[in-house]
Amino acid sequence: MSERVAEYLAGQREAILERLRTLIRFPSVSTDPAFAEGMRGARDFLLDRLRAIGLTDVRLLDAPKGDSIGQPAIFGAWTGAGPDRPTIMIYGHYDVQPADPLELWHSPPFEPTIRDGRLYARGASDVKGSTLVAVETVAGFLAVEGGCPVNVKLFLEGEEEVGSPSLPALIEANRGLLAADAMLSADGGGAAGPLPALNIGCRGTCALQFSLRTARKDAHSGKVGGAMRNALHEMARLLATLHDDQGRVLVQGFEAGVPPLSNALRTEAASLPLDEAAWYAEFGAEPFGDPAYTVRERTTMRPTVEVNGMWGGYTAEGSKTVTPCEAHAKLTMRLVPGQDPAAVQAAVRAHLERHAPRGVALEFHYRPGGTRAFTLAADHPLRAAAGAVLEREKGAAPAVTRLGGTVPITTLFQERLGIDSLMFGLASPDEDAHAPNEFFRLSSLEEGLRLWPMILTELGRMRAADFPKRAVA
Amino acid sequence: MSERVAEYLAGQREAILERLRTLIRFPSVSTDPAFAEGMRGARDFLLDRLRAIGLTDVRLLDAPKGDSIGQPAIFGAWTGAGPDRPTIMIYGHYDVQPADPLELWHSPPFEPTIRDGRLYARGASDVKGSTLVAVETVAGFLAVEGGCPVNVKLFLEGEEEVGSPSLPALIEANRGLLAADAMLSADGGGAAGPLPALNIGCRGTCALQFSLRTARKDAHSGKVGGAMRNALHEMARLLATLHDDQGRVLVQGFEAGVPPLSNALRTEAASLPLDEAAWYAEFGAEPFGDPAYTVRERTTMRPTVEVNGMWGGYTAEGSKTVTPCEAHAKLTMRLVPGQDPAAVQAAVRAHLERHAPRGVALEFHYRPGGTRAFTLAADHPLRAAAGAVLEREKGAAPAVTRLGGTVPITTLFQERLGIDSLMFGLASPDEDAHAPNEFFRLSSLEEGLRLWPMILTELGRMRAADFPKRAVA
Repeated sequence: MSERVAEYLAGQREAILERLRTLIRFPSVSTDPAFAEGMRGARDFLLDRLRAIGLTDVRLLDAPKGDSIGQPAIFGAWTGAGPDRPTIMIYGHYDVQPADPLELWHSPPFEPTIRDGRLYARGASDVKGSTLVAVETVAGFLAVEGGCPVNVKLFLEGEEEVGSPSLPALIEANRGLLAADAMLSADGGGAAGPLPALNIGCRGTCALQFSLRTARKDAHSGKVGGAMRNALHEMARLLATLHDDQGRVLVQGFEAGVPPLSNALRTEAASLPLDEAAWYAEFGAEPFGDPAYTVRERTTMRPTVEVNGMWGGYTAEGSKTVTPCEAHAKLTMRLVPGQDPAAVQAAVRAHLERHAPRGVALEFHYRPGGTRAFTLAADHPLRAAAGAVLEREKGAAPAVTRLGGTVPITTLFQERLGIDSLMFGLASPDEDAHAPNEFFRLSSLEEGLRLWPMILTELGRMRAADFPKRAVA
Repeated sequence: MSERVAEYLAGQREAILERLRTLIRFPSVSTDPAFAEGMRGARDFLLDRLRAIGLTDVRLLDAPKGDSIGQPAIFGAWTGAGPDRPTIMIYGHYDVQPADPLELWHSPPFEPTIRDGRLYARGASDVKGSTLVAVETVAGFLAVEGGCPVNVKLFLEGEEEVGSPSLPALIEANRGLLAADAMLSADGGGAAGPLPALNIGCRGTCALQFSLRTARKDAHSGKVGGAMRNALHEMARLLATLHDDQGRVLVQGFEAGVPPLSNALRTEAASLPLDEAAWYAEFGAEPFGDPAYTVRERTTMRPTVEVNGMWGGYTAEGSKTVTPCEAHAKLTMRLVPGQDPAAVQAAVRAHLERHAPRGVALEFHYRPGGTRAFTLAADHPLRAAAGAVLEREKGAAPAVTRLGGTVPITTLFQERLGIDSLMFGLASPDEDAHAPNEFFRLSSLEEGLRLWPMILTELGRMRAADFPKRAVA
């Protein structure tokens, strides 16, 4: 059944690629209100497509007013497989990261451009490419077979790149509509490419922004220099206390609840080979990080504190002899199993407050909480289905790995709807997601249009009763 | 003679204030090419005024092509006092600092606004107010007396706020035209206000900008976080090495050539009272700085390293989970007698290079050199003249003090033309030069229109032969 659908989708390659181009041209940057038009365009395009391929109940889902930042999710369902078959939630997101720094792009970020078999554009890899593959797979089943092997609920989020702030309330308000046996995510995962890998976990995240003030106003460095705290000096001194010289986090209480890395996990980390020298060379960077761990362990099994932005004083052309009175920093943390996002924020905040000397005032701006790390249990049917599919496609059993990034929905759906997720996205780690010149391999698009029909077919061989029922918070 | 001129100028107050408003409305920001129009407007206005009041040889002076950044100085002369009388160069500048951060201004920076006897605008205090007082004083003598007590050469610079890069070449190319016995500066000095003070020195300055790179490209913090250097962490760590926790500079070789502060200098520093608690309260800041020195010593007799701007990563609305590969910082140093600007730049650069770990590449952008500190000798006729004038106006002998900032022209004219300078400006230290809501007291304008006729008259009682002739480099 999946072969006929895959064959059909292969024939539709040009049309699907053209749809992907159209979707990418909408600059759907969720973090910046200036891109509201792009968000709306991407939404309308996907709503139209979901209706056109024959889904029912196609609509926008939003959180109740007051809980929403105004980026609704897109929903559509097909439930003709019957109550014995599993109901699979398919997850993707239509929002993207900001494109700046714009001057580093070789082609305009929102004008998809093909070079050397790669589609360059913001959002191509993260995650419009994989999202559209999932949508078109369902379209293929409905067009060729008149139905899917499983019941399907498509859920395409609009706030993934800003940490899904409205999602808990949105889920609460649509609990019945979103009921499912499991979730298959087009975001995260390494399903495409030469190294078969099964992504069974991801790090969590939380954020913290703060401003630092040393005086009521900026001053002339000639008048006060030598006798007045400089906010930039203080910001530098403060941020320098967060890590040691090998990047180890020095925040007290940061790892509360984190067990020592087990031998089982270290073995799992080693199961997927990583050429560390090549990995650093790809970024043009020198090896770095806690020497007690491998690069894969550092990036998937160890928590981090990262400064994502830092600024203050005069930053335009030329020079200005100012002693600045304020400075700013944006931080995000990556979390591992055992860490509570709010507790981590509190620990980092307490660290900064403890290290700020008298005369340095801190002001924090953050939404308390975040996303815990996620892990899919070893005996979950999703792992069996995906393992079989990848082994068939690639000729070898997939390695088990984890994503260093965060797919908030996996944690949220587990905590709020009691369903587990498997990341089955097609992006490769080298595709510069979140950076200039992001791209998506056309070969991954093609591979995705084979893998997704296979996994829906595989899941269709299981029964709804095979899936674990979890208690919901 | 000065009384009649002062009386005339007092009667012209409204017209002079209106001219100052017009001059301020030209946004003459020299550091930013976007303000070329404002620079041109300020120049044309002053050229017209100098011609109108009867100066001869009114023209723009520029450095030879290649040495100029394109901000010529304005020149005009009156030499009718005869060869026995001293020739006094009067210095001012028509360029201003950038106005940002714009959002902190209570009224538009280039729309002069009077509130509570203060004229608020960028450049009002630094230094269009004092510059115009000098011009109008010469105008007053020519209008009332038909001549000045001394020969006058007006020199109004256009690159003061960017460190006078073209000035050495400009002086070289106009050595004959600029010959004088001494220079009186409208920039610097505390001639106006209740505390009589004679400004006999200023700190020097030099600048250094650098970028820091940790990888070839920005990366997704989920993918690389924990195993890749973050340029912002490295910038913070590096800048944190420049000072100890009391602000003392830790750069090796930074104070080479600086003698220990003498008792004579410490006594001089103490001669002008400073209410340190009130000084800090004015800025809303806590006391800070090397406890071995008083605030006046810290700000006028001790050298500094200041970070004026620092930036990198994502700084717009919302959050972005990026591990940035580059960061930037702008530094300026304040120098005291004995320090060589180029040697200080080299020491700071060497410090940064020494403290940058493997994997952190630094790139420096700066013009080697800068301005040495300046001191006016104790027996110089300028000191006698200004002392007499201030004592007459205020009823007490002025304290001797130094400017913490830099008036590059004082050093340059001493080194290149062999003439000494006295800073006789009217700005007060609390007028927020270089900061939002800069203002100039209208009472200082009025006082300046009395003091400047007096000092020109006092200098007219001296002979050209009374002024020391220095060797020129």
